[in-house]
Amino acid sequence: VVKRDVTRVVTPGTLIDSSMLGSAGAQYLMAVAPDRKDTFGLAFLDVSTGEFFISSGSGGRDYADLVSEVVRYRPTEAIIPESLQGGLPGRLETLGVTVSRYRDDAFDPDAAYARLCEQFGTTTLEGYGCEGLTAPVAAAGAALRYAQETQQSSLPHISGIASRIPTGNMVLDAITLRNLEITTSIRGSGDGNTLLSVLDTTETSMGSRTMRSFLISPLIGKTAIDERLDAVEHFFDHALERQELRSILGDFSDIERIAGRIAYGNAGPRDLATLKESLECIPDVKSLFSDDAPLLVREALDAMSDHAGVIDLVGRAIVDDPPALAKSGGMIREGFNRKLDELRHLATTGKNWIAEFQQQERERTGIKSLKVGYNRVFGYYIEVTKPNLHLVPPEYERRQTLANAERYTIPDLREKEAMIATAEERLAALEAELYTELVRTLAAHVPDLQATARAVGLLDVYAALGEVAARYGYSRPVIEESGRIIIRDGRHPVVERHLPVPFVPNDTELDAAGDQIMIITGANMAGKSTYMRAVALCCIMAQMGSFVPARHATIGIVDRVFTRVGAFDDLASGQSTFMVEMLELANILNNATPQSLVVLDEIGRGTSTLDGCSIARAVVEFLHGKAVAGSRTLFATHFHDLIDLEGSLARVKNFHFAVKDTGSDVVFLRKIIPGATDRSYGVHVARLAGIPKKVTDRAMKLLKEASGREFSGGPRAPRYTQMLLVDPGEGVVEENPAVR
Amino acid sequence: VVKRDVTRVVTPGTLIDSSMLGSAGAQYLMAVAPDRKDTFGLAFLDVSTGEFFISSGSGGRDYADLVSEVVRYRPTEAIIPESLQGGLPGRLETLGVTVSRYRDDAFDPDAAYARLCEQFGTTTLEGYGCEGLTAPVAAAGAALRYAQETQQSSLPHISGIASRIPTGNMVLDAITLRNLEITTSIRGSGDGNTLLSVLDTTETSMGSRTMRSFLISPLIGKTAIDERLDAVEHFFDHALERQELRSILGDFSDIERIAGRIAYGNAGPRDLATLKESLECIPDVKSLFSDDAPLLVREALDAMSDHAGVIDLVGRAIVDDPPALAKSGGMIREGFNRKLDELRHLATTGKNWIAEFQQQERERTGIKSLKVGYNRVFGYYIEVTKPNLHLVPPEYERRQTLANAERYTIPDLREKEAMIATAEERLAALEAELYTELVRTLAAHVPDLQATARAVGLLDVYAALGEVAARYGYSRPVIEESGRIIIRDGRHPVVERHLPVPFVPNDTELDAAGDQIMIITGANMAGKSTYMRAVALCCIMAQMGSFVPARHATIGIVDRVFTRVGAFDDLASGQSTFMVEMLELANILNNATPQSLVVLDEIGRGTSTLDGCSIARAVVEFLHGKAVAGSRTLFATHFHDLIDLEGSLARVKNFHFAVKDTGSDVVFLRKIIPGATDRSYGVHVARLAGIPKKVTDRAMKLLKEASGREFSGGPRAPRYTQMLLVDPGEGVVEENPAVR
Repeated sequence: VVKRDVTRVVTPGTLIDSSMLGSAGAQYLMAVAPDRKDTFGLAFLDVSTGEFFISSGSGGRDYADLVSEVVRYRPTEAIIPESLQGGLPGRLETLGVTVSRYRDDAFDPDAAYARLCEQFGTTTLEGYGCEGLTAPVAAAGAALRYAQETQQSSLPHISGIASRIPTGNMVLDAITLRNLEITTSIRGSGDGNTLLSVLDTTETSMGSRTMRSFLISPLIGKTAIDERLDAVEHFFDHALERQELRSILGDFSDIERIAGRIAYGNAGPRDLATLKESLECIPDVKSLFSDDAPLLVREALDAMSDHAGVIDLVGRAIVDDPPALAKSGGMIREGFNRKLDELRHLATTGKNWIAEFQQQERERTGIKSLKVGYNRVFGYYIEVTKPNLHLVPPEYERRQTLANAERYTIPDLREKEAMIATAEERLAALEAELYTELVRTLAAHVPDLQATARAVGLLDVYAALGEVAARYGYSRPVIEESGRIIIRDGRHPVVERHLPVPFVPNDTELDAAGDQIMIITGANMAGKSTYMRAVALCCIMAQMGSFVPARHATIGIVDRVFTRVGAFDDLASGQSTFMVEMLELANILNNATPQSLVVLDEIGRGTSTLDGCSIARAVVEFLHGKAVAGSRTLFATHFHDLIDLEGSLARVKNFHFAVKDTGSDVVFLRKIIPGATDRSYGVHVARLAGIPKKVTDRAMKLLKEASGREFSGGPRAPRYTQMLLVDPGEGVVEENPAVR
Repeated sequence: VVKRDVTRVVTPGTLIDSSMLGSAGAQYLMAVAPDRKDTFGLAFLDVSTGEFFISSGSGGRDYADLVSEVVRYRPTEAIIPESLQGGLPGRLETLGVTVSRYRDDAFDPDAAYARLCEQFGTTTLEGYGCEGLTAPVAAAGAALRYAQETQQSSLPHISGIASRIPTGNMVLDAITLRNLEITTSIRGSGDGNTLLSVLDTTETSMGSRTMRSFLISPLIGKTAIDERLDAVEHFFDHALERQELRSILGDFSDIERIAGRIAYGNAGPRDLATLKESLECIPDVKSLFSDDAPLLVREALDAMSDHAGVIDLVGRAIVDDPPALAKSGGMIREGFNRKLDELRHLATTGKNWIAEFQQQERERTGIKSLKVGYNRVFGYYIEVTKPNLHLVPPEYERRQTLANAERYTIPDLREKEAMIATAEERLAALEAELYTELVRTLAAHVPDLQATARAVGLLDVYAALGEVAARYGYSRPVIEESGRIIIRDGRHPVVERHLPVPFVPNDTELDAAGDQIMIITGANMAGKSTYMRAVALCCIMAQMGSFVPARHATIGIVDRVFTRVGAFDDLASGQSTFMVEMLELANILNNATPQSLVVLDEIGRGTSTLDGCSIARAVVEFLHGKAVAGSRTLFATHFHDLIDLEGSLARVKNFHFAVKDTGSDVVFLRKIIPGATDRSYGVHVARLAGIPKKVTDRAMKLLKEASGREFSGGPRAPRYTQMLLVDPGEGVVEENPAVR
């Protein structure tokens, strides 16, 4: 009798017999791991192909997010933890998904993490962009285990995982935000050298916050981007309107913060006064625009109320130029409350009485320097300096002795003191009470105020982007749902602001299905990094709705910008420079889509030349792929061997930066041109940096010897030599002595 | 008639005719440029050899600093700005220096900077370590101009400048402090992963501050270092004494800060009480030590007064467990001042009267809920709730109406109110006055307190270093005035604290006149960077007076540690990665002395292989030099071509990290061994990081093809292949799976 082991369990999600599969398209097993806070980590695994990725969805609005993922990927089976409570299983079944309950311990995040690392043969999931995504990783681990169990196999073809956490915006991860210096500069040299600092010409705090949020999450919908661009173009075209709006907004207080303080009950009198002043300007703002203003501008205007109630109440209650803090008193306007006015009168009368009393006593006693003062300990007193003590009348009662004077009181003064002090204290108490009541009344208007604040922030950003565009000569990008990026005379928006000489503009032509990969070789400091970052920044600016620093730009929408440009060691956490480089690279390769833009600067530097060069070449081949389109890629390298990829891969093209080499001197022309180069000018840069001449002379000699050896070697792919652009008369190419 | 131009002007400092020069030794022209704040920038130029460096000296103590520089370098001539006031010229002349006044504009800092850059053919002085040294650079510019004018020549042999700003300590510049993660970690991940965090086991704030200052400026005098080591060894040897001292210090308040607050007059009562408690422990501290304690321990003990006066005064004046702030009151002890005691009695009596009054009125009116309260606006009042209003007697005068109650007063209560309020206010005023006077008296003791605080800080550090040494198995280094560094079984003090497995120790043998330069090749992540940093940290720890993480260490004193290990771009300021690397390298090459330790990690990465390799080789040759000794250097590289330097340069030796390569798997053994390797395992690391298998398989194939091509090429220097250490049984070499 032949003994039969179970060799496979067939479940709807792990079906891999092609005969059992229907038409084309992936056949996903889905796993769901609950997170805290009513969100779910999701994993999708196609056992037949090994395709494996994670996602997530919230449990809100009857699992709407999660359902949209299910609808998108159409899993046939879902596994959930045995102990999972709630309506999710039922909801999944209504979608036609077979729900299987699976042992809880398979969803343990730590075990899942370890299981995935083991499966992929790695030490970390950082390279898959999965680090810190606890629930999705738990789901992935469970899916893998379930698949392994049902297939009775280790499934070696499942060798990696991608992250497809859904987002309505272009994804800019922390590494890319840092590398491109979007909101903070890399050397930590303050925020003066960031894209944000260039763009943020807003006039209000609301605008500044809105600008930042626009910048860190650009849009990915063509309509939404075009609507923003329409608004910005309106302000770009109407300079006078823009200036007037910005001038009005310049006086705006931070309505949003003040509204917050009103809600918390700690708004000060000056807050209310400046709030009123700002609100009073709203009609001026509205009157600037006609009915044919762009959609987003009209929406913002419509969102702004006239706030007549707030203006009227604050106007009646608060004096002009009030104190910052309520406890200072004196902020309630005369006429607002009769009782308060009476107490004020009383206090004032008392003070006048004191002044008169001092004058009387001076005359009566003949002591010219006699004065009436007040302190908290002894109340009102009459002060007489030592030389005049012989003039003090007998009815003065001594209260306090100072070094140079004595202080007295008399019954009259004591009586008035009680009257004045009481009036002042009651005045303060009543005023404080009236003020608290006022703020409480205003709290009902907070939602309206916030809506206005948001609208002001938006208008401010549209106008600021119009201002920047006009000031720095940006142009409106054409947004497409395509794989193209075409830039004519593009500049780096931040670098051009800090150069003492004009920035040399450059062109870019990328196409996911055409010139997909630019391999950029050439001299150090010629401008490779600046060029590549400028292209990435141009896409980001376009998709946030800004004009771009170029004569013309057509941007096929980018779903994500990936960059890999250099890293510090993370010594104590045990990662070497090269490991950090590889982790960031792995994350890119595992997650880039044909809609992504990939910027790779000198991949493979941290290891030996042979290893590095092999990795670099394999990466280009991988990004190129076999399909008809792939991620648009800018690839700067010092591995000159890579230039022969242009011949062998259809969508790879070589570029380099023009250099004028007079033999004795080298001038970087900063113009990118087609073709490759074999010179890097590293020794030249070393001399500029102050490396002793002895060292650079020797290095130059070694370099010449080595070049000679190399060129006399075996057959090599034909390569372009350095091209010189030689028509400075035309002014197209300018010599740019600025470093890099 | 032949027309004669002036071809040269002979001045004492610019004499270059060898016939006019006396014996050997440099002939310096000195330039002096005044800074603000009574310091002077100095420049020394030997026109005959082109030797050129800057220094500085303060004007204090009759120019003592400046004079010591003059005595050290013996310039024959000094140039000073025409308009310079003060006694400096006279002082210089008494030293036998010819003083020449030179035009003020030659000392202009900007012009000087530009002149030096032009002379050296660089764009910045960063590479000379001169950035930001305004006055020394001004002096250098003036010296250069003066020499050019007198020699009527551009003096092309003057091609660089060094910084020799005098310091009594090992120089650790900002770059090195950062690279070695001395006080802050590179990734900004907090301070948990720094050398400071490992060493700082001090018990007091004074100790913690002292530890930091020791660490950032280690010593360079053998005697001073040995004295510190004696103190540390004392605590290392005497564990019980160490524990007891640390336990006592654990309760010490921050005497130094409190002394500062006393001096500023803002010390709070609780400060004084904790100060007293700490001072009372001083006899306990002293009693721990016998007379044969090491010198520095005895010095610290001697510097600590018994502070009997302070203890007595605070003990009499301040209550036990006083409030933090003086304005809270109640901090002066009973019996300290009779007047205060009287007022306190009065206030207490008054309060008792109020309590009795409340009881009486309840009984008299029959209102059980009647209560007497106080508020600042209305003073003392009798409160009666609404339901009891019919019981209110006619003599009650209404003062205030609340929602549920009425408040009244009567003459009796008003009278007492005045009495109580006055007593309390006078009490507060007097107590505040007494307290202020107390703090003023204590201010006279501030210098003594500060001396004690410093001594406590020192003892704390010695004990803490003893504690760390005992806890982590450090050993006492042997300090020499030699060019050697010998380490047996050295570890990285920070990395070993964070590894889940034992750290694999390694040996080091460096000698300025022997094995001067270690060229370290080998696999990525094998531990090159960690090894090199461990050596540098060992020197720093030894010279700050700490034991070191090694079985044995002999440290020939290091005047300066230079490191160059990787950098970020400084995009907006216009410096490329490679430029940053070259600037840091230039600074090292221009300033390293035969006493320095130089750590170079993968120099030449940022440019093409040929340029980088040429630069790297030239740098090694330069550091090696032609003389009999040079900077001790650790040089990690992936340029395997460099290993043939071992044959051609006398003081260069190859090393690499052992790897066990089973063909299918690679294990890093983390043991450094002599000889070179030709494998970097970059592709292996890439796979570990999660680079898609497709990419790494392809890279491995490319690598094999390329290796084949290379080895079939022309003749090469003989090279060692990867050695395997294969005696795991002995346990000398452990397999360490932790990354790097």
